[in-house]
Amino acid sequence: MTTVVVRSAAVGDVPVLLALIRALAEFEKLSHQVVATEATLKASMFGSRQYAEALIAEVDGAPVGFALFFHSFSTFLGEPGLYLEDLFVRPEARSHGIGLQLMSELARVALGRGCRRFEWSVLDWNERALSFYRRLGAEPMAEWTVQRLTGAALERLASANG
Amino acid sequence: MTTVVVRSAAVGDVPVLLALIRALAEFEKLSHQVVATEATLKASMFGSRQYAEALIAEVDGAPVGFALFFHSFSTFLGEPGLYLEDLFVRPEARSHGIGLQLMSELARVALGRGCRRFEWSVLDWNERALSFYRRLGAEPMAEWTVQRLTGAALERLASANG
Repeated sequence: MTTVVVRSAAVGDVPVLLALIRALAEFEKLSHQVVATEATLKASMFGSRQYAEALIAEVDGAPVGFALFFHSFSTFLGEPGLYLEDLFVRPEARSHGIGLQLMSELARVALGRGCRRFEWSVLDWNERALSFYRRLGAEPMAEWTVQRLTGAALERLASANG
Repeated sequence: MTTVVVRSAAVGDVPVLLALIRALAEFEKLSHQVVATEATLKASMFGSRQYAEALIAEVDGAPVGFALFFHSFSTFLGEPGLYLEDLFVRPEARSHGIGLQLMSELARVALGRGCRRFEWSVLDWNERALSFYRRLGAEPMAEWTVQRLTGAALERLASANG
């Protein structure tokens, strides 16, 4: 019998987190995009300001998955929400409900902190994920599209009518 | 000649912020969704943890617009990003570049804090906004859809395999 434990990541888990982030990127064939290092994760997640937090899922003591989240904010509600940035379970550990355990713990964290909105994003072609999220009762915000500004365009905007 | 000033909101601006949030909701015909109060905004934006920050745009000393933002996080970059939750300029103050001044100041805040990603969401039918964002060089993350869990579904998930 296997035991699944979901726990909050601490600063000592930075190497484990980075390994899981790299496994996620490899799974998505995006390894070349990973520039995070142990130093940047330590500084941004466990420094003077915690920009993000993470949960780690372990099977018999071995880390097999993680969820990384931060707090969003709703102007209409006037309160923070919980935003799940990444959820990943190693392929060999799937179909054992570990993703659900991570999601369930996130829902408890959200409600425990007074957040009435739990949100995340999904790729339109990820049918497995979409069907999982539909079963949870999530509502797709289909009318909205995220816009991203980076690099030279971001610097150009920063220089506009200073 | 009018003078436009963009400045950071302080705790004394909570009544101004709430009035602008209500004006935004009215413009979107969503006034019934606003449950934020001065007390909730004060607690969540100027309390022990700042869940969101805001910029206020003033014309000749009168507040005419605001931008409310928080920090997102990129696992691959291992660093925070800046996420703009709401941008609003009162209809009577539009077409004077105030939205651009708010966006430009947000870009400076992002780069000043080491955030290489500046993101926000837009309604698919908001052509005026979409064309403004395209001119800025923003990339639409068209493959992604936000999923939102609230109310009874959120409580159900929190109670799953506790």
